[in-house]
Amino acid sequence: MHTDLATARSLTERLLITAGVPGPAATQQAELLLVAEAKGMPSHGLLRLPRLLRRLANGTASPTNSGKHQWLSPCYLSVDGEQGLGPVVARRALEAVVPAAGRHGVAVCSITNNNHLGMLGYYAGLMAERGLVCLGMTTSEALVHPWGGTEAMLGTNPFALGVPAQPYPLVLDMATSQISMGKIHDHALRGVPLEPGWALDAEGNATVDPEAAKSGAIAPFGGPKGYGLGLGLGAMITFLTGAAYGTAVGGTLDDDRPSNKGDLFILLSGGAHSTSEYLDQVRDSRRADPAKPVAVPGDGARARYQESAANGIDVADDLWRELTGLLAATSRPEAALAE
Amino acid sequence: MHTDLATARSLTERLLITAGVPGPAATQQAELLLVAEAKGMPSHGLLRLPRLLRRLANGTASPTNSGKHQWLSPCYLSVDGEQGLGPVVARRALEAVVPAAGRHGVAVCSITNNNHLGMLGYYAGLMAERGLVCLGMTTSEALVHPWGGTEAMLGTNPFALGVPAQPYPLVLDMATSQISMGKIHDHALRGVPLEPGWALDAEGNATVDPEAAKSGAIAPFGGPKGYGLGLGLGAMITFLTGAAYGTAVGGTLDDDRPSNKGDLFILLSGGAHSTSEYLDQVRDSRRADPAKPVAVPGDGARARYQESAANGIDVADDLWRELTGLLAATSRPEAALAE
Repeated sequence: MHTDLATARSLTERLLITAGVPGPAATQQAELLLVAEAKGMPSHGLLRLPRLLRRLANGTASPTNSGKHQWLSPCYLSVDGEQGLGPVVARRALEAVVPAAGRHGVAVCSITNNNHLGMLGYYAGLMAERGLVCLGMTTSEALVHPWGGTEAMLGTNPFALGVPAQPYPLVLDMATSQISMGKIHDHALRGVPLEPGWALDAEGNATVDPEAAKSGAIAPFGGPKGYGLGLGLGAMITFLTGAAYGTAVGGTLDDDRPSNKGDLFILLSGGAHSTSEYLDQVRDSRRADPAKPVAVPGDGARARYQESAANGIDVADDLWRELTGLLAATSRPEAALAE
Repeated sequence: MHTDLATARSLTERLLITAGVPGPAATQQAELLLVAEAKGMPSHGLLRLPRLLRRLANGTASPTNSGKHQWLSPCYLSVDGEQGLGPVVARRALEAVVPAAGRHGVAVCSITNNNHLGMLGYYAGLMAERGLVCLGMTTSEALVHPWGGTEAMLGTNPFALGVPAQPYPLVLDMATSQISMGKIHDHALRGVPLEPGWALDAEGNATVDPEAAKSGAIAPFGGPKGYGLGLGLGAMITFLTGAAYGTAVGGTLDDDRPSNKGDLFILLSGGAHSTSEYLDQVRDSRRADPAKPVAVPGDGARARYQESAANGIDVADDLWRELTGLLAATSRPEAALAE
């Protein structure tokens, strides 16, 4: 199904509003899902909407909570997300700490009990556009095996970094796993084998069979360093927030467990020295492939977004049918209510 | 040459003191070099001492400066390193921000004009032992090519992370390059080819010839993610500190350029929730090789340190002869002075 962003956004917002989410919050949640679609990261896009609607319907996620704020110091905000919508809780927390980061040169918000944030890079980009360095990180369900181990003990623990620059900020957004579980499911659906080194089966043996990998574990990216980074970020978040860890993490891949992961943002203003010239030097440096300019993190996603904004996005037929079907089913009681 | 740590430490301290470094500063500088030797990271060990002595002798490095401190806020310290010894400037800066991190939950020190810090993990471990999460990072000379590029445009930009835990903290210490330039020199010395994917030659072609790689570029670790992390951390440090970037960085691999890189530490105290149980779960998880337990970052270095402390270290014969020769040469004027 090929559609334009505005249509997909409108459908998403209407579904969320029907589920009890206030308009502005629905807009924020829809934004995260649609930006992911537009940037070519469907694993964080509309695919997640039906689950979110089920979580809203059964009370696991709150349509209206936006987090309880507790300032531990003038530059450290601790947020209990109250099972609100991930982007709603995170946006409100970030808005609260932006002035603190300007005033003190650094500010932190740590968040617990919050639903899935969506693309972490979104927040890093938003802060970088406002002149702040932003480090963002979050824990997630145990899907990744340690380097030298064979059991899923770590989340895909993504890391985002935004650095202000002209004409575009640097926006890094990376999982610390070799691939996402979404990619394994995608290979399974299409019957395509995995690449060697991507995953283990439930017994801990290397496998290229996506079905076997579903109950196994994904490799960390970049060998022992990627493992160390993923575990280190996860342990850091747990230390600071008290969020659940390892196999105890739930709530972003299921319908009915409260979300008990942790999210952490560090904002820095510092000297605001320019990095624009450096990033342009990197972009203009000698290419491995003459046809492909060297990219700075964020360049590719930005180009894909512009392409999607101009020409629309492709959404899997099944998913589109499910979403439009949900809206049709809910529009009847709405109409009844209006009578 | 096999020697014990105390002997190597004493030789190092005496050489530094002879070069005009006050005793306590000589002890701090020697500590960094010896811990690197003991932890099996000779690229950050005694190998760097002759260059440091030449920098002290020609006035490029200051034996006595320990940094000018300027507080940008109660939790943000900006330090002009005044070309002092890396560990001396960094230790004093960290001591100054530790109370701020306790009081505010977060504190930053950014450092410019400072000589080579040595092993970044040392500082992260030190802070973690004192109950603080510590992120440490630094820029360095352009040796690494961008993903999709073929010129050396990035430093090996290492990243360290310490997270408190019992019985040991997690201490991650990793360069964002696939290998170090030291490893290329080591392969060249021994006439051993590099592994494919490690490096490019001066023309940007893949090479396994270590001599050709010396004038080329090292690959980032972990493909595009490792590149993004290295560039992102480097850009972040430049944005916050105004330090030099890319090919303009000098002073840690030469005798006579002022050191113009940047160093950044972020300390966090947060909730101080325990991560010990999680790290032990990871250590006890199923092994890929039954003979090798799963390690948490820092475990290997700690074991190597204990082994070196008990049984001594091996120092290259040439290097040991050079260092003992230097001490013999300088002890004559000392003796003359004492007469």
